[in-house]
Amino acid sequence: MLRHVVLFTWAEGTTGEQLERLTTRLAELPGLIPEIESFDFGSDAEINEGNHDFGIVAEFADRDSFVVYRDHPAHQAVIKECIAPIRDQRAALQFETG
Amino acid sequence: MLRHVVLFTWAEGTTGEQLERLTTRLAELPGLIPEIESFDFGSDAEINEGNHDFGIVAEFADRDSFVVYRDHPAHQAVIKECIAPIRDQRAALQFETG
Repeated sequence: MLRHVVLFTWAEGTTGEQLERLTTRLAELPGLIPEIESFDFGSDAEINEGNHDFGIVAEFADRDSFVVYRDHPAHQAVIKECIAPIRDQRAALQFETG
Repeated sequence: MLRHVVLFTWAEGTTGEQLERLTTRLAELPGLIPEIESFDFGSDAEINEGNHDFGIVAEFADRDSFVVYRDHPAHQAVIKECIAPIRDQRAALQFETG
């Protein structure tokens, strides 16, 4: 399996409404992109100081399936319409598991 | 469940031997810290440009279990002995799932 992880910090002035719109659109992706095997996301639980604000952890059968997701129009639309307007920092990684 | 995610970039000059030692020590943690429900880690798969170098994704029953892991001597020893000497950037997050 290939695990995809991305963490974001949000720009100053990001609103609850913008975050709600993002989570609604993210929740639609597994139904639109069958290559997604598992898809979890959420805001930081505020246990530790200095964390990022939001994270997505997804799983794919292999590299090719991840690339289909990465380049899929539905995913690209969420990036363009919901993430890019509020994004400050981004940290990402894909790694093989099991 | 609570998901813990941490991504690192490594300092220039980090050796394969240092990474091997880290992965060996990380692999020991689930046996030493029963609060760990799942524990996956690995180096970037080099599919995308600009990614971090290494990531850990772990799951805990709840916040308290995560805090036990965070403060556990075995975990703290891995941070001190294996991560701190090679660490450049760090991005982390904990979020509730399910």
